[in-house]
This record gives sequence, structure tokens and C-alpha cells, in this order.
Amino acid sequence: MLLCDIGNTSYHFLNGDKEFKESTLTFDPRTIKEKVYYISVNKKLQDLLQSLENWIDLSSFIGKAKYYKTMGVDRIMAVEAVKHGIIIDAGSAVTVDVVKEGRFEGGFIYPGMAAMQKTYKDISPLLNYSFNFELNLDKMPKNSQDAISYGYLKTLYCEVVSHKMPVILTGGDAAVFAKIFKEATVDERLIFKGMKKILQKADIC
Amino acid sequence: MLLCDIGNTSYHFLNGDKEFKESTLTFDPRTIKEKVYYISVNKKLQDLLQSLENWIDLSSFIGKAKYYKTMGVDRIMAVEAVKHGIIIDAGSAVTVDVVKEGRFEGGFIYPGMAAMQKTYKDISPLLNYSFNFELNLDKMPKNSQDAISYGYLKTLYCEVVSHKMPVILTGGDAAVFAKIFKEATVDERLIFKGMKKILQKADIC
Repeated sequence: MLLCDIGNTSYHFLNGDKEFKESTLTFDPRTIKEKVYYISVNKKLQDLLQSLENWIDLSSFIGKAKYYKTMGVDRIMAVEAVKHGIIIDAGSAVTVDVVKEGRFEGGFIYPGMAAMQKTYKDISPLLNYSFNFELNLDKMPKNSQDAISYGYLKTLYCEVVSHKMPVILTGGDAAVFAKIFKEATVDERLIFKGMKKILQKADIC
Repeated sequence: MLLCDIGNTSYHFLNGDKEFKESTLTFDPRTIKEKVYYISVNKKLQDLLQSLENWIDLSSFIGKAKYYKTMGVDRIMAVEAVKHGIIIDAGSAVTVDVVKEGRFEGGFIYPGMAAMQKTYKDISPLLNYSFNFELNLDKMPKNSQDAISYGYLKTLYCEVVSHKMPVILTGGDAAVFAKIFKEATVDERLIFKGMKKILQKADIC
């Protein structure tokens, strides 16, 4: 049995304790003969995956009443994995979700690192910097690189810590964000944990 | 005597108590025969303006040691106008600057409304919404429009109010931002006030 979290650019597999990724552009899901429990936010692959008997879409097993209609299934799985805390999933978007004693309280969406860097660059070529994750959050900046880094990171940090809850970091940029969210727990397999929980609830394994 | 604040898209004039704008694409500064004290962040107009005797660049009258090298002259003028407070200049970028008892403490840069809306849209067409400025900042969102509005506005709000200082709003989007920063003072002529102060300090008028 495999677990798979499908995004717009890659298939992210978990096989027992081993993770691997395949590109959505080149990988053919028909080459896998085992059972695959998956979630996907990739609209283009929808028809192909649904036509394959051994690929089982886990989204149909979610009690969706707790969530809102347009909420991404990856966010839902992360929330399912957490009992109490604020989850930051740092990828192409940064999603922030609050779970209080098992209850989903809502969440917000912030631009991912690459998207935000492009935003600043497009506003002015003078703002074409990478973000400084070594930034001192307690001091107002006096140079352009820190001025955009603070604008991107301190604002987010300020909102997140205002909830006074344990912070859980996941997603491709979790390790980088951990430099700012020093008190956070990094759990790169959070979505897989949620998927496993859904499988257990549904009595599949 | 005229004052003029020149951006990338427009000349913003103040003539006595009357304001007016002209497009940088169509307006010819040579048509003005009066003395014009100006600031400009528009690189393309630099040579033309410097060749005109009656157009006087105020940036040369600023005591620049207080600021940093790449800081925009419009931000500097806003800071010059304020004794104590946190200034939000909401335009194509949102600049946030702190002045404590006349001393510039530093500042940061956040994307403007239009730029940030485009960022979300580019991340996913499912996030192609305008921002909801009627948003309840005390509640975590449970729909996509509020999820991006909260991501854009609440994070900024949280950082700004954490300074516990009077908030002064200026720039083209000041009135819209005032819906979120309810306690702020809106001063659309803040930059002109700074320019007048510089004129006085320089004993020009």
C-alpha cells in the first residue's frame, strides 16, 4: 500500500517509511500496480486517476461538514493530523490553519516565498532581493532587503504567534520558515499522518 | 509656487490648497512656467526635470544621514512630516515607517493591494478574488475570499498595532485601508506636509 499527495508539480509518495517524489509531467500512474491511497489538488490528473482501479481518492472519506467547500484537501489532511495547534503549510502558498481541541477554527492563505519574491520584484526592480531569514524580528529595518523580508515574514509571524498556540510547520519550505518560527515543530509528514488517520477512521487499515 | 510629488504613473501637484494630477505619459513639465519644488521616484523623467530651471529637486535639501541609501524620497518626506507615529503609505507598495519623537526608527515594505491580488491569482485561479475590507479581523476565515483577505490585511494589521503608536494613513489607498485601521488618522497630504517642512528648514519659504 502506498500513500500519495499530489500537487501541481509532483506526486509525493510514502511507501512504509520511505518517501519519494515524481514529476506530474513525466510520471505515469499506470505503472504502479499496488493500491495507492491518494489526495490531489491537481485538476489535470483527475480523470486519469479516477479511471485507475488501484488509485483510491481519500477525499471521499472525509467528514466534509467541518470544512468549507473550496478548502484544499491537503489543508484538510494537515488539520486532521493535529489535535491542538496552528499549522503552517509553507509551499507555493502558505496556508495557516487553527485547530482547537480537535475542532477546525478556520484559516488563512498567504503567498509562498517564490510568489512573494516575484511580487516585490514586479513592484520595483529595486526590490529584487531574496528574503533574509536571519532577520532580527525585533528591529525595524533600515535597508531594502530587510524591509521586504520584514514585510513578508514579521507580519505573518506576528499574526501566527498572537494565537498563543503550538505552531506546527510542514510543506516544502518548512525548514526555512523554522528559522523565523523558532518555537515551531517541523513535521514534513503531517499530511501523510492525516491521511493515515482518515484510513483508520474509515476502517481501511 | 507649486509642489509636486512624482511617481511612476502621475505628477501629483499641490497649488495653494488645490491638488491635481497629470499622467507621466502625457504631461509635459515644460508647460509650467512657475517655480515647482518636486520630489520624484521616476527615473525616466530625471534628465528632463533636471534640465528645467524652474523645477527644483527637493531631495538635495534632505538631511540624508538619518535615512538609508535606497529609501524612496516619498517615504522620507512622509517621515519628515510626522513627529511620533507609524506611517502607512498605501500605494503600489505599502510602506510602513516608524518615527519616535522625531527620530526615524526604520520601516518595512509590503505589497500594494493590486500587486497582492495578482499574486494570489497567479498562485491559483481559485484565489482570484478582490479583498474584503469589511472582514472581521477577530475570526479565522472559513471561505476563500476571506482567507486571502485575512492573509493580506490581518497580518499587516497585527504587526502595525503591535507598535502601540498613533497610526497615520496616506497614499492612494488610504481611505480603503482606513476600513481596517479604524483608529488611524487619514492624511492624504502627508508627503506635501513633509515637503513644506523641508522648504522651511532650508529657508526657501
